[in-house]
Amino acid sequence: MTQWSISEYHNFCNTLKSMWLRVSFDLVFDIEIPTPFILMLRPRSGAQQWVARESYKIEPNIQAYEYTDAFGNLCQRVIAPSGLFSIQTEAEIKTATYVDEAPDAPFVEIQNLPDTVLSYLLPSRFCESDRFSDLANAITANALPGYNQVVAIESWLCNTISYIPGSSDYAISAIEVNNKQCGVCRDLAHLGIALCRSLSIPARLVVGYLHNLEPMDMHAWFEAFVGGRWYIFDATQSGKKGGYVSIGYGRDAADVPLFNQYGPAVYPIKHLVKVEQIAKEN
Amino acid sequence: MTQWSISEYHNFCNTLKSMWLRVSFDLVFDIEIPTPFILMLRPRSGAQQWVARESYKIEPNIQAYEYTDAFGNLCQRVIAPSGLFSIQTEAEIKTATYVDEAPDAPFVEIQNLPDTVLSYLLPSRFCESDRFSDLANAITANALPGYNQVVAIESWLCNTISYIPGSSDYAISAIEVNNKQCGVCRDLAHLGIALCRSLSIPARLVVGYLHNLEPMDMHAWFEAFVGGRWYIFDATQSGKKGGYVSIGYGRDAADVPLFNQYGPAVYPIKHLVKVEQIAKEN
Amino acid sequence: MTQWSISEYHNFCNTLKSMWLRVSFDLVFDIEIPTPFILMLRPRSGAQQWVARESYKIEPNIQAYEYTDAFGNLCQRVIAPSGLFSIQTEAEIKTATYVDEAPDAPFVEIQNLPDTVLSYLLPSRFCESDRFSDLANAITANALPGYNQVVAIESWLCNTISYIPGSSDYAISAIEVNNKQCGVCRDLAHLGIALCRSLSIPARLVVGYLHNLEPMDMHAWFEAFVGGRWYIFDATQSGKKGGYVSIGYGRDAADVPLFNQYGPAVYPIKHLVKVEQIAKEN
Amino acid sequence: MTQWSISEYHNFCNTLKSMWLRVSFDLVFDIEIPTPFILMLRPRSGAQQWVARESYKIEPNIQAYEYTDAFGNLCQRVIAPSGLFSIQTEAEIKTATYVDEAPDAPFVEIQNLPDTVLSYLLPSRFCESDRFSDLANAITANALPGYNQVVAIESWLCNTISYIPGSSDYAISAIEVNNKQCGVCRDLAHLGIALCRSLSIPARLVVGYLHNLEPMDMHAWFEAFVGGRWYIFDATQSGKKGGYVSIGYGRDAADVPLFNQYGPAVYPIKHLVKVEQIAKEN
Repeated sequence: MTQWSISEYHNFCNTLKSMWLRVSFDLVFDIEIPTPFILMLRPRSGAQQWVARESYKIEPNIQAYEYTDAFGNLCQRVIAPSGLFSIQTEAEIKTATYVDEAPDAPFVEIQNLPDTVLSYLLPSRFCESDRFSDLANAITANALPGYNQVVAIESWLCNTISYIPGSSDYAISAIEVNNKQCGVCRDLAHLGIALCRSLSIPARLVVGYLHNLEPMDMHAWFEAFVGGRWYIFDATQSGKKGGYVSIGYGRDAADVPLFNQYGPAVYPIKHLVKVEQIAKEN
Repeated sequence: MTQWSISEYHNFCNTLKSMWLRVSFDLVFDIEIPTPFILMLRPRSGAQQWVARESYKIEPNIQAYEYTDAFGNLCQRVIAPSGLFSIQTEAEIKTATYVDEAPDAPFVEIQNLPDTVLSYLLPSRFCESDRFSDLANAITANALPGYNQVVAIESWLCNTISYIPGSSDYAISAIEVNNKQCGVCRDLAHLGIALCRSLSIPARLVVGYLHNLEPMDMHAWFEAFVGGRWYIFDATQSGKKGGYVSIGYGRDAADVPLFNQYGPAVYPIKHLVKVEQIAKEN
Repeated sequence: MTQWSISEYHNFCNTLKSMWLRVSFDLVFDIEIPTPFILMLRPRSGAQQWVARESYKIEPNIQAYEYTDAFGNLCQRVIAPSGLFSIQTEAEIKTATYVDEAPDAPFVEIQNLPDTVLSYLLPSRFCESDRFSDLANAITANALPGYNQVVAIESWLCNTISYIPGSSDYAISAIEVNNKQCGVCRDLAHLGIALCRSLSIPARLVVGYLHNLEPMDMHAWFEAFVGGRWYIFDATQSGKKGGYVSIGYGRDAADVPLFNQYGPAVYPIKHLVKVEQIAKEN
Repeated sequence: MTQWSISEYHNFCNTLKSMWLRVSFDLVFDIEIPTPFILMLRPRSGAQQWVARESYKIEPNIQAYEYTDAFGNLCQRVIAPSGLFSIQTEAEIKTATYVDEAPDAPFVEIQNLPDTVLSYLLPSRFCESDRFSDLANAITANALPGYNQVVAIESWLCNTISYIPGSSDYAISAIEVNNKQCGVCRDLAHLGIALCRSLSIPARLVVGYLHNLEPMDMHAWFEAFVGGRWYIFDATQSGKKGGYVSIGYGRDAADVPLFNQYGPAVYPIKHLVKVEQIAKEN
């Protein structure tokens, strides 16, 4: 009989194999009028990853302020002055070589879910889970409740929704994704989340880096809570996956913006993401 | 020169006139199979109201468990057994006779908003604020940024969207409300919230009781953060308003369900709301 | 093999027998100059108890404001005007007829403790756990690590420290209690907590009501975290115990004042506690 | 008329002059048996400082897990294996060249304190503020309530308690410090905190780095909440001070350990702190 670990701490300790990644993100804007930004670009150590080295450079060298949002993400507040405004972040992080899998891990009854997980059952801006029961039931008709249902959803997404990196300028919702039958990584994740929640499986969006992503860019995937813990799912990748580095968690993309900018819209004139494996013992 | 109070505590102390209300809610279900519920039916004392007496009766007398969600709302978790399942809540509460008004209270710049208020700027399930900039700008074209903009939005809702109590079975989003041009209290609030947020004014949904509501039922309205604090707005009522008792706050109705029920849908066979003024000194 | 439950929610559901209590507390002060108070007199529903009915009456009918402290306790802030100032609280609460016991429940290794429990390992104002290693080791020399160690501490307190209700005007620390070899309920609890923590067992103070306490008054006891959850211990009572109603939790009495008053000291001119069993089905 | 800023965010923006520091801490233990540690060695960006670059190296390369405690401090949990165990932390941080001063900033009435500040009024393990009223009143007899009282306390500490770096192996309490009339930085801070709290001024301990500290080591100082915000005080330094980098905040040293180690005591065989100013524009 398999025993499902219950503590995030344990998850990490049980991870057999890990790898070291150096991740970086360069972002440059050309600002016309002073513009308030809220950025979410700082990975933090947690159950699934360890940040050993990190830098965060803002130019010009303006005042910045950091706070933690309700999901535990580190957010930076700045007012970008007019002119070139750049952010360079870099980190060295240990993460799992392969994501944990748990075939047959059971569905967790609502009454047994931790309080903090309950909000991930609710519909959200881009995941209208209140409208997906029929589809979710059809997709998972033959799956054991729990982990296997989420695998069925992930496979369905993989086979049904075309993954077209760079195909979307702004976030669209799960309903819209399902209508278009194609989308970026974020869109597939949103639809996966909506389907999970409609089956009363808590699900959340994760934004971050992925080793060997093609083409390289920031990435988004989702996690589902089954068998007593969160598991990573990503319908944009096939085969055994690993090398995920998370920056932020939330109910959907509305909660996890890499940057939110207020006032007249500005767009990055540079947006460069790098992920490379580095040698460290372990 | 008006000075905007900055503390919720102060808000309450400055309230000149208050009234006492006895509110109650009876809810009965006929349950077929044991059904997990998460209820949000317990008002709590805060800056705007004081709960002097409260009862919460569940029949049959099953185990119940209470927790506080991320918005500070009290939530009750139970598993309703098959058969009749009833909840009776009653409370005696002091609240303001008239809601505070603050003509000309200024817009709060993003960089000056408290961290905890920032999440109320984001789009949410039923408030797609990312799609309402043009409409919001048109509605508020002549208003001073801040409180007066929200008044303009409230007036526009009042004049444009028909308030039809009981007209909706399930929550629809601000876009859908704007298309239908009519809705229940919750729908008008959602559209008001979406419009505020699209102007970078934080806005949240409130669910609770309202004295003299016609027809009497649970009610929903919205609050906007201007001039350094939250103010109540309600496009379904005209004239000077008061007698509000809040039960829960959230980004929209997804966060503030009176009850969330899991498994095959069950509907209340009784749903009775009462609000009456009672005599207490003060 | 015994399985230790891991969820506070489960604790409650597994409780086989419970009783209903009506508890009340009347407190009256004669105030000379306006005096700020922070009160902690409001029990809340949680894993171990369910509050079905509650009232909280303040006279004169001044403004009051409620907030939740870092331990999850409900606190009320008021400024008492000069003259008579009274608080009457009453609640009907379901609680366990007998507290849970768990002989042999294991010591939880530091690395396996939940994050939120770690602060209950630290020394605090009235529990100088950094000075009690030798004594704690002597007392528990023959006990299995975990629950049985706490039972050994509870027995040692019961046999060594004379419990003299009403013998202390202000809180003294565990070192002082151990020197005096006598104390009130709070003092015995403080010493028990200091001994537990010195063995790396998380322990916390609880303040509340106890059915059949002699003489009747507010009460204090402690909880220790072993076998994956909190268990109640109370060296002032013998035999199988039950009928506990908690009002507040904290590291020690400094965190859990029934009232904290600022400015020139005032003392209650009335202080009346009642606990009676009432009949309800279950 | 001076206007007291109310937002921590503003505090930072108003800081006129800042400097860049590179701080580092090397810590090595020789471990006999596997030993759980909780470390607090990671500065974070906040209102008073900005972390631009940071590294945290643990050898051997064991699993580590990070969480945020109730005070917002980043804590790392590890189990050190037997053998040499080393931690090297380094950070580049922007901080104020001179700490803010605010002569005559007023005492904040209890009823106007933010909820989150109230716990810093309570006595704690090493700050028995419940026993210092008379001394505090004597020391501050001629001072305007608020900032000036804290300055009087700081001056009294400076003149009365000999600051002897390295003179103490383990933490002693404010009462003990006052009896000995000498102490390390932490001891002076504890006595300062106890005196402030006995006057109903919230005060907290800060642990971190200080530029030009002699002899260089980790440092401790205190902050008091007057005039609507926290101000730094440090009785071990004279003249205009600056160059503070905080790692952790708490009620006293019990809350802010650089490391807490469980099981048989181990002592660092290396403990090396460096702080140097580096050139960056601004």
